[in-house]
Amino acid sequence: MRLGVAGLGLIGGGVALGLRDRHEVTGYDTSPEARSAAQARGIRTVDRLVDLLPADAVVVATPLLSIVPTLEALAARAGGAVLVELGSLKAAVAELAERAPAGARIVGLHPMAGSEATGFAAADPAMFRGRAFLVVPTSRTDDGAEALAADLARELGGTVTVCSAEIHDRAVAAVSALPLAAAVALSRVARAAAPLDLAVAAGPGLRDATRLAATPTELALGLLAAPGLREHLVSLRAAIAELEGALGDDSALRALLERGRADRP
Amino acid sequence: MRLGVAGLGLIGGGVALGLRDRHEVTGYDTSPEARSAAQARGIRTVDRLVDLLPADAVVVATPLLSIVPTLEALAARAGGAVLVELGSLKAAVAELAERAPAGARIVGLHPMAGSEATGFAAADPAMFRGRAFLVVPTSRTDDGAEALAADLARELGGTVTVCSAEIHDRAVAAVSALPLAAAVALSRVARAAAPLDLAVAAGPGLRDATRLAATPTELALGLLAAPGLREHLVSLRAAIAELEGALGDDSALRALLERGRADRP
Repeated sequence: MRLGVAGLGLIGGGVALGLRDRHEVTGYDTSPEARSAAQARGIRTVDRLVDLLPADAVVVATPLLSIVPTLEALAARAGGAVLVELGSLKAAVAELAERAPAGARIVGLHPMAGSEATGFAAADPAMFRGRAFLVVPTSRTDDGAEALAADLARELGGTVTVCSAEIHDRAVAAVSALPLAAAVALSRVARAAAPLDLAVAAGPGLRDATRLAATPTELALGLLAAPGLREHLVSLRAAIAELEGALGDDSALRALLERGRADRP
Repeated sequence: MRLGVAGLGLIGGGVALGLRDRHEVTGYDTSPEARSAAQARGIRTVDRLVDLLPADAVVVATPLLSIVPTLEALAARAGGAVLVELGSLKAAVAELAERAPAGARIVGLHPMAGSEATGFAAADPAMFRGRAFLVVPTSRTDDGAEALAADLARELGGTVTVCSAEIHDRAVAAVSALPLAAAVALSRVARAAAPLDLAVAAGPGLRDATRLAATPTELALGLLAAPGLREHLVSLRAAIAELEGALGDDSALRALLERGRADRP
């Protein structure tokens, strides 16, 4: 099918590279450098968003705050194209769908994959393989649109779970926003506490535990707006305080360690 | 040289495999299965700890709580062999050195490398390449013993930093114990907060952020005895509370995110 990709960063670039052998892929990015980088890897590009149309589907993989404006710009003239948006939070898309033009077809899709890297240069379709993709229908998602989003996920090597925007956003609060916030706090405290240069003293443990603190700032700000995050941070402080209280009591610590291990994904 | 390795788990196994082409390596473990696994990979083993002697050096890579008893058993009859212990905390070894027999040569060494895997089967000398090794002299460390420990670290592909037991243990509190405790707390809260099965919803972010929660329990209990951990956990709760207070204020959040990123190792 004719497939447009709006936003040629890490995610959109990976989608374009991963699907170009199956579909007639055309890319667009506001940045001429991103368009050039995609062209250099053999992706056809256009110079204006609306030139991705006509198409059978357009994947919207812009930064989170640009998802709704991009959908609005496309929905007005999509002519039956399915708009598949890959944003990290879905509440605003659900709202947009309620007021979208007649005939608009909008469906959410979220690959649970990522990296602290950014830009087309870091794009690699292998990042999607074996990952869960959440398909998030809107009020403007028909069966064909939902099936199309699920097909794209499977073509990228992912597995499909369907959920509502509300469930999706609560899941993101727990699995993305909470660990991001924890990593930001941990990074700062570990640096202040270490009596040796971290370049010397830190092993892979602290590096992995703080990797999410390297999330690009705009994405991080978007994620930190996830619903329920404040309550999760309160719970995290309580769980840390419980560990503090157990220090020196090996049987209490053992129970907390075993629970933490069992609860890991 | 003749090099004994006491404790053939992940770390001792990696040391034995990584040094057997350079030295005459003999291994010992209390577990017959571990000895068999080492033999199967071509490591000569003995059935009693003391049969590692006579030697030029013995690397002690037992579980943390067994380090001091093992050093005591070896020191009485080491006959000039350098005892290089790889424990994750050094205060108890410093104490032991003070009361060790005349002529005992004891030096600490700590590779800042690890994995949630355990046992000889998971041992891989590549885990040490490019890693920092902290050399921790005791009151029974002469120049030759210190140089020997540093040489072993470099032969394993690591870099060497010398520090005191006190600095070492404070560093471990910051770079190992603190992120371990944070991972244990995060794992539990994320599981409770997620409205979807984590096997579906969790991407690599949460997995990496909670990896240390899979630390084997006995090692984790040892690490959680690191000095100053309680204060670091109080600081971590304060840093999380500061993030909570900044939610909804993008300029305040941006400053905290940038600091967290800058403070990463």
